[in-house]
Amino acid sequence: MSKKILNKALVLLSGGQDSTTCLAVALEKFPDQVEAVAFDYGQRHRIELDSAKKIAGIAGVHLEIINIDTISKITENALTRHNCTIKEKDGELPSTFVEGRNLIFLSYAAIYAKTRKIKNIYTGVCQTDYSGYPDCRNDFVRSLNNTLNLAMDYQFKLITPLMWLKKSETVQLMQDMDKLEWYLYTHTCYEGLRPACGKCPACVLRLRGFYDAGIQDPLAYTAVDN
Amino acid sequence: MSKKILNKALVLLSGGQDSTTCLAVALEKFPDQVEAVAFDYGQRHRIELDSAKKIAGIAGVHLEIINIDTISKITENALTRHNCTIKEKDGELPSTFVEGRNLIFLSYAAIYAKTRKIKNIYTGVCQTDYSGYPDCRNDFVRSLNNTLNLAMDYQFKLITPLMWLKKSETVQLMQDMDKLEWYLYTHTCYEGLRPACGKCPACVLRLRGFYDAGIQDPLAYTAVDN
Repeated sequence: MSKKILNKALVLLSGGQDSTTCLAVALEKFPDQVEAVAFDYGQRHRIELDSAKKIAGIAGVHLEIINIDTISKITENALTRHNCTIKEKDGELPSTFVEGRNLIFLSYAAIYAKTRKIKNIYTGVCQTDYSGYPDCRNDFVRSLNNTLNLAMDYQFKLITPLMWLKKSETVQLMQDMDKLEWYLYTHTCYEGLRPACGKCPACVLRLRGFYDAGIQDPLAYTAVDN
Repeated sequence: MSKKILNKALVLLSGGQDSTTCLAVALEKFPDQVEAVAFDYGQRHRIELDSAKKIAGIAGVHLEIINIDTISKITENALTRHNCTIKEKDGELPSTFVEGRNLIFLSYAAIYAKTRKIKNIYTGVCQTDYSGYPDCRNDFVRSLNNTLNLAMDYQFKLITPLMWLKKSETVQLMQDMDKLEWYLYTHTCYEGLRPACGKCPACVLRLRGFYDAGIQDPLAYTAVDN
């Protein structure tokens, strides 16, 4: 793989496992040319922003935190409304689905990227393990890439290295890059707990990935042994 | 034209001439089934929000004002940065261009529309008189429509009745609907002045439209006779 620097890259860094993996991938491709952005949107698990700061610090990249309070005002969901229960039901979108979240995040990331003269934007969305969220699918990302280019007369490149990976393969990828210890600082738990609850849909998905990869999760959990 | 109500409609109402015309068109097609949304994004001409409220009141539709402060924080432009001069130069985007503005507005409008179970979204963007703003072009709107549908698993319909009209034809359309007096309450001037300055690019475009249509603009202007 050519390491030639074609341009700078911006990584959407939530502080979770997938975006942290994306940051590592981006740094392999664009060493010293990576910046990161995180979103404060009133999420229940705001603790993930501390994770994002910590990981950006370890990686030595600038992190810009963009504040968005609009999204929680106009949608009702369990991530930004604390009186709304986290639940999943077959055939329905989970209550943690924030309508249009990736649409808004990627749009703001692109606007910000253009002001920084950056064309490459990394996001850790994944269709394989997409939890029923439509805005994690490849069709959506490809359509949005076209829309962003038309909106701003700019040639963005939305890069999704995890799109077709299983969670276990993501964990394996991080091990191959010798960055597994970064996972110690990631935050996944929807309940915002540390040690992580081990029971919410996000914890369960994470733990299954490590289990399938045969790799130990460096995170501490309350409810389960991993 | 069939007047059958297929669904409800949401109109992006800035309080300007085009969106006011869109509101009138939407009410012809969906009588009593129209809602409106306006955006407070720190614009220099915030006075347009008063216009939007006044016009929504006259039209008898509910107006939701959505506050967005993110966009002015991450972009630099003459509409939200008061120390930035309004200027236009051949071959460059005008300094009034707010990067990604319609992208963000239409995305939030769609998220809001879905919570209100509305599929039809009217916007007054116009490629004919688009002032060099890429996010007013038809290709952008069609691409965004596809992106929104994929983002939220919903069949939005972005409706752009003014896309191919000249400003003079928009004025004529409003006269044909017998709603010309609504223009008395619209706001167009980028400088936020009332009486309007008559000199900024927005005022000049508006005045030319009325002149070409041979119709008197009901607005008061300081600098010019119309």
